[in-house]
Amino acid sequence: MNKIIETAKKIIEPDQKMRDIAKAHLDDLTKPPGSLGRLEELVEQIVFITGNKKPTTAKKVIFTLAGDHGVAEEGVSAFPQAVTCQMLLNFSHGGAAVNVLARHAGADLKVVDMGVKGEIPQNSGVVNKKIQPGTDNMSKGPSMSKNDAILSVERGIELVEENSDYDVIGTGDMGIANTTASSAIIAVLTGKDVKQVTGRGTGINNNAFQNKVEVIKKAIKINNPDPNDPIDVLSKVGGFEIGGIAGVLLAAASKRIPVVVDGLIATAGALIAAKIEPKVKFYMVPSHLSVENGHKKALQFLELNPYFDLSMRLGEGTGAALTITLIDAAVKIYNEMATFSNAKVSKS
Amino acid sequence: MNKIIETAKKIIEPDQKMRDIAKAHLDDLTKPPGSLGRLEELVEQIVFITGNKKPTTAKKVIFTLAGDHGVAEEGVSAFPQAVTCQMLLNFSHGGAAVNVLARHAGADLKVVDMGVKGEIPQNSGVVNKKIQPGTDNMSKGPSMSKNDAILSVERGIELVEENSDYDVIGTGDMGIANTTASSAIIAVLTGKDVKQVTGRGTGINNNAFQNKVEVIKKAIKINNPDPNDPIDVLSKVGGFEIGGIAGVLLAAASKRIPVVVDGLIATAGALIAAKIEPKVKFYMVPSHLSVENGHKKALQFLELNPYFDLSMRLGEGTGAALTITLIDAAVKIYNEMATFSNAKVSKS
Repeated sequence: MNKIIETAKKIIEPDQKMRDIAKAHLDDLTKPPGSLGRLEELVEQIVFITGNKKPTTAKKVIFTLAGDHGVAEEGVSAFPQAVTCQMLLNFSHGGAAVNVLARHAGADLKVVDMGVKGEIPQNSGVVNKKIQPGTDNMSKGPSMSKNDAILSVERGIELVEENSDYDVIGTGDMGIANTTASSAIIAVLTGKDVKQVTGRGTGINNNAFQNKVEVIKKAIKINNPDPNDPIDVLSKVGGFEIGGIAGVLLAAASKRIPVVVDGLIATAGALIAAKIEPKVKFYMVPSHLSVENGHKKALQFLELNPYFDLSMRLGEGTGAALTITLIDAAVKIYNEMATFSNAKVSKS
Repeated sequence: MNKIIETAKKIIEPDQKMRDIAKAHLDDLTKPPGSLGRLEELVEQIVFITGNKKPTTAKKVIFTLAGDHGVAEEGVSAFPQAVTCQMLLNFSHGGAAVNVLARHAGADLKVVDMGVKGEIPQNSGVVNKKIQPGTDNMSKGPSMSKNDAILSVERGIELVEENSDYDVIGTGDMGIANTTASSAIIAVLTGKDVKQVTGRGTGINNNAFQNKVEVIKKAIKINNPDPNDPIDVLSKVGGFEIGGIAGVLLAAASKRIPVVVDGLIATAGALIAAKIEPKVKFYMVPSHLSVENGHKKALQFLELNPYFDLSMRLGEGTGAALTITLIDAAVKIYNEMATFSNAKVSKS
């Protein structure tokens, strides 16, 4: 727990003055003030976070954290549990959606085994941070021990410490049944009704959806997680990749690195992180609004306004990758546009 | 007029079967069916338009068409008319927002003088398609002769004919007071109230906005454009760059090249083009939703659902550039992702 506390302590509130400096520069560029809308808001946040008047996105990375979920045995997903490991190999061969979109964004992709069921070959390139071969079935008891919950956040922190020369970090996830754990976390931490924050994940039918809602309700009832204790919530209805994402967010914030929150699962991790240290929110860059029911509620709770609304629901870091491309565009606008005086354009 | 008629005649309705082929391929990629949402919709449209089962975005271009507007003398803009020419030089030096975002998108940028007030140096790289040095003041009579309206559309067609080896085309505009002309066109062609489709352009205050609405109403009353005759509408309340954009859209469609519709001004051009030949709509790729009031109404009229909603209101082709980046991402998803069988991932 010490590592988490130390990291959280290092997270400072950035200087609001940097926003004004960024805004003044943006208003001096050859366009009507504010006419690039949220593209300006985006680079303003980057300058605010980093304190860097010459923001850069030279080095970008997406961490895709994977874990398996014991609750998969309750039939909450349209896909079998084996798909988690199969997809890790697909990631390592470059064939998944997040591989394509990370390449498109010019971002490195680090795939991390936080706790999948099954062995991933050493030479696969997957980073080994395995805690256990999957969580326990949360509808029958806690997903993991308190110790393992702490460990999952700490391993997420380690990831950033081991890869600290990045200018932008994106989060992502893989794990059959992890929308079930994420919806449970969102329900507990936002206080919303389970049904309101539960979606169809990979694409389940009405019956399976009803079952998923009941499974989540049961898990919350049996485990009775304390909404004021994020580690308790994580250990009872969480997942290793979700704890890891919370760790990545905390560590990125402690190093003043902008960190993009992907979809439902990453946002569940963001809720955990924000409960550990609310100042982490300053460093979170929202990405897209997922089709998943709980996502909008969780984003609103965190006061994050997503940049994309493309009816996506894949996770992996795909929303983060698109947003990293947008950050790139916004930072280029900031760095490369001419000013009114340089370009000899009349201001009014 | 012959060139317009011939071009319109060449526009065919694409084969719906190509959509099914694209969808089948997308469903075979290693992700839950439809889980990439509108990114899938986007590449589906590209396959549908081009009839190409191996879609490519290797060569991309944005045409930014510029023109001046006599109605600027009515005080409808926050910027003086001289800014149109000044911005053309800024474009030619690479310092404007669309330069930055076109480079970001890997797209060529062709800036075109369709009729600005003032001479643009030969060596500026700006393509010379000048019809007149600006339109006449539409609040006192027609913006241009019927002949010049036809010529503006034809010169837009020429642009595509002279640059026909592109896989994707984006549209853009520059012209002080051209939101005034665009709102007038949108009011006439959609039948909406002028106030409902008029916005604040570069950023005018309440009084100037009231005046802008009155100027547009007056222009429509005096000129009485026939909503069933797009050339009549263009000549009476249009602009040279708007006619040119209509021509670009028609020519791109005739060559089955996907063409991205930028913001308010490009969408006014799209309304003109769709009135000339409704089948052009199949080839239009929507981009962003502008802050400008009339844009949403015009997009709805054309049944275009924008991909971005970033509170932008700059024009130039900036929305088109962002969308070209998104098309690139969608096409890469289509071409580069592994299939379930290749990656040995279980389908269910």
